[in-house]
Amino acid sequence: MGKEHHPTGKSRRGGDDLWDLVPSTVHLRDVTLRDGLQSESIVLDLGDKVSLARVMIDAGIREMEVTAFVHPEKVPAMADAERLCRELPMRSSVIYSALVFNAKGLDRALETGVDQIAVFVSASDAQSRSNTGKGTAESLAEAQGVLTRAAKEDIKIRTGVISAFGCRLEGRISPARVSDLVRALHETGSEEMTLADTSGTADPHQILERVASCRSILGGTRLSLHLHDATGWALANLTTALQLGVDTFDVTLGGLGGCPFVPEAAGNLAIHRVVRFLGAMGIDTGIDLGGLQEGLSRLERMVGRRLSPGDSP
Amino acid sequence: MGKEHHPTGKSRRGGDDLWDLVPSTVHLRDVTLRDGLQSESIVLDLGDKVSLARVMIDAGIREMEVTAFVHPEKVPAMADAERLCRELPMRSSVIYSALVFNAKGLDRALETGVDQIAVFVSASDAQSRSNTGKGTAESLAEAQGVLTRAAKEDIKIRTGVISAFGCRLEGRISPARVSDLVRALHETGSEEMTLADTSGTADPHQILERVASCRSILGGTRLSLHLHDATGWALANLTTALQLGVDTFDVTLGGLGGCPFVPEAAGNLAIHRVVRFLGAMGIDTGIDLGGLQEGLSRLERMVGRRLSPGDSP
Repeated sequence: MGKEHHPTGKSRRGGDDLWDLVPSTVHLRDVTLRDGLQSESIVLDLGDKVSLARVMIDAGIREMEVTAFVHPEKVPAMADAERLCRELPMRSSVIYSALVFNAKGLDRALETGVDQIAVFVSASDAQSRSNTGKGTAESLAEAQGVLTRAAKEDIKIRTGVISAFGCRLEGRISPARVSDLVRALHETGSEEMTLADTSGTADPHQILERVASCRSILGGTRLSLHLHDATGWALANLTTALQLGVDTFDVTLGGLGGCPFVPEAAGNLAIHRVVRFLGAMGIDTGIDLGGLQEGLSRLERMVGRRLSPGDSP
Repeated sequence: MGKEHHPTGKSRRGGDDLWDLVPSTVHLRDVTLRDGLQSESIVLDLGDKVSLARVMIDAGIREMEVTAFVHPEKVPAMADAERLCRELPMRSSVIYSALVFNAKGLDRALETGVDQIAVFVSASDAQSRSNTGKGTAESLAEAQGVLTRAAKEDIKIRTGVISAFGCRLEGRISPARVSDLVRALHETGSEEMTLADTSGTADPHQILERVASCRSILGGTRLSLHLHDATGWALANLTTALQLGVDTFDVTLGGLGGCPFVPEAAGNLAIHRVVRFLGAMGIDTGIDLGGLQEGLSRLERMVGRRLSPGDSP
């Protein structure tokens, strides 16, 4: 121990080089109505969903993933997808998105006029089969068909990779598998790529490697992260992503959510938690904490239990 | 949105520059017996403390802060300081340390032959008064007296700054105040400097700024962090510190601890949590999780309640 201890002998003058890509503004996409609700046993009323969307918009949310065009029997919470898309408050400043996995889903999305479709493929073959009945390769082919068609329509397109870090069924997911998927999806011309830590097992070093390699494929296309917080590592992961210039993250009220097809998937990043964390570092989200609190109280009444604002470890 | 989105236009090739100072081995100092226990209502038996120390050493702990030489009436949990230091298992590979705030404390430490004294001064004047009855300046003068005397003795010396980031009583603590304290303490020739986030309110950007400025004062002298986890930000803070090459952190079993003089001070970083987190990134701690579990079970029986291994957010 003692004077010789500094492990590398290297140093960072001021450390600013760690922070020079950190954005001054971060975009938080609220996915409460989709990822938050899909594994709840209670199916919310359409009116409740719409009122929640309104509160979140009033609180400053400008992007919202509201539903999934999937089989209503498979995910009852999303059975009202068409009606919800029609009832949501129209705001030119707000982008509503919906998950789409196949041609039928795209037809439904186009019919409702939702602003953006989100087309995701899982990097875990086992999880893909468990989720959609199809492996990664088949799901990718289907996604490419959807994306090719959607590109000709007047709809925004976002793509993403589910289980882009690890999987409760398969364990670690190889970086090459993720890069291949990102490349294949990016070639279809989407406006944004989301990497999802569906199992909540990513660590900061994985985030660094995967975000950096994804960024090199994507060029200037927007890159976002969907982080679950199974282990309490999500804010550390978010911090590393910020250092790589990532400025868009999915969040839910009270950290609600998981995935009905992924055993033990933990909640999403809680929006209160992210807003306070970023705020402490002077990073603006445009979100009003008071407004969020109103949303959280409403959601707690709707799901019939207390949710954590997510401030304690 | 869309192609123009990448916020800065800059990019990191591979992102490796964010990780090049991250140490391959991290030293975890167990402070369960001191910071963990001092705010417990139950005062542990000497035998229990000694058996806990033994378990932690068997689990791989090589540095342990075991007590504080303070007035026994003020901190009853530390009243057995002399006896504890004499009963601890002697191991040449283990460094035991004890907090010392004044000349009397130093006399007691020297008499017991504890390996290392830890001399801390609070950067928060209000917290310093609440803790010791003396403001920062007076405490520093007293610490300097202790350090000058200790330098002539055969005892290792560690120094540190309490409330080096924020304070529940004073709010944010200015970087200059911390730098001044670090400089003054460093000049006394200590072997290590610890920055303590006593209130658990530090954020990664603060860590970056303060660690970098502290490093520039310290040169190659070992720098360590004592992080509390009031908000669930501690692992993000730890990650940023790793990126600056910090390789020594204080931890407790089950995250036990706080400070009896700091209202709402949250628990310490839980050792299980840190070992798992670092292990996932391939960073070695030399700690055996099975052995830790034995320690946690014992401690739970001693304090009479369940403690969290700290794995959930």
